[in-house]
Amino acid sequence: MTIKLHCFGESGNAYKAALALQLSGLDWEPVKVDFFGGETRTPEYRASVNAMGEAPVMIDGDLRLTQSGVIQDYVSEKSGKFGGKDNAERREILRWVLWDNHKLSSMAGVTRFLMNFLPADKRPAEVIAFNQGRLKGAYAVLNDHLEGRDWIVGEGVTNADLSCCGYLYYPEAFGFDRKDWPNIDAWLTRLSNEPGWKAPYDLMPGSPADRA
Amino acid sequence: MTIKLHCFGESGNAYKAALALQLSGLDWEPVKVDFFGGETRTPEYRASVNAMGEAPVMIDGDLRLTQSGVIQDYVSEKSGKFGGKDNAERREILRWVLWDNHKLSSMAGVTRFLMNFLPADKRPAEVIAFNQGRLKGAYAVLNDHLEGRDWIVGEGVTNADLSCCGYLYYPEAFGFDRKDWPNIDAWLTRLSNEPGWKAPYDLMPGSPADRA
Repeated sequence: MTIKLHCFGESGNAYKAALALQLSGLDWEPVKVDFFGGETRTPEYRASVNAMGEAPVMIDGDLRLTQSGVIQDYVSEKSGKFGGKDNAERREILRWVLWDNHKLSSMAGVTRFLMNFLPADKRPAEVIAFNQGRLKGAYAVLNDHLEGRDWIVGEGVTNADLSCCGYLYYPEAFGFDRKDWPNIDAWLTRLSNEPGWKAPYDLMPGSPADRA
Repeated sequence: MTIKLHCFGESGNAYKAALALQLSGLDWEPVKVDFFGGETRTPEYRASVNAMGEAPVMIDGDLRLTQSGVIQDYVSEKSGKFGGKDNAERREILRWVLWDNHKLSSMAGVTRFLMNFLPADKRPAEVIAFNQGRLKGAYAVLNDHLEGRDWIVGEGVTNADLSCCGYLYYPEAFGFDRKDWPNIDAWLTRLSNEPGWKAPYDLMPGSPADRA
């Protein structure tokens, strides 16, 4: 049975789940969610797909899972990949996935949205500047951690990498420039060299170009 | 051996870990981190306690863990409590812990900090209003979920409850009023009736009163 992932190209959170599925080798396909058309905010979506009103949502037979980190956990269980080699690695991966949700992807996602997907006269400058300041602290933590390391945890790709990279491949400006963070830059290149890797708009349906 | 938790009263993220330790029945004690004196930002703290520059940090013998969700995971493993009764509950707990890190505690923590722990003339009004708007969406999701439920996942207290409550017992104003959210209000009362429960400033050392 083919796993279905309800997702849309613009979502870095959906990308985390899609990339885990893609690199795992499991059989999967994306189903487009019309986020910008308001689909996730409809009562029907909340009732039938996700009460939190979010994407991604993964369907595998009778199982429906939401939150990218939970989908990654399931992909690891099913494929045996990306979950770490022992309990200590598993916890270290969880640490970085939580950190990413708290400090990196959450801030990057909203900042990119405000700067790119709101009309120019509705962009809250103070909020954007504040978030960018916090994000710089997060980039520094990740860049420092990657000094002398190929991957965030252990000797290969794990869900820590697949979570933290969520928003960092997107072309839209939100204050992140790979050139400013050499260890992050090298790590993103390394990850993009993994067999099967695709950029967000190539891996998932929908992109700003569709609305241009 | 007594588990040590490096923490401080004002931190809702530390409270999540402290409350899990407290309700688990494990032998633990708090160690005060002087966050407001700058301790977590010193090179010594980053080198010897936590490279992310954050609290809480848990020490159990040779094991050092950071991120409240990772400490909760460890407490569950060691005590057999709060981790759910099967794999489906474990995943549902992870879903809420991730959601809390992404949408609730992260936003509540920073908003409460900006409104209470910055000098009055340095509080960024636009950021505070923006965050409060996002938080209302999060309160609504949690309040709706708790309709007809005693606990967030399953039939008893889990790490989902111990994560989402992190900032909701604090007395400082940040735009959350229990009276506005009856299901959240009843759930917070229910949790506070658990044997051993204490409010943040009673469970951990340090409070705004110390600096008054």
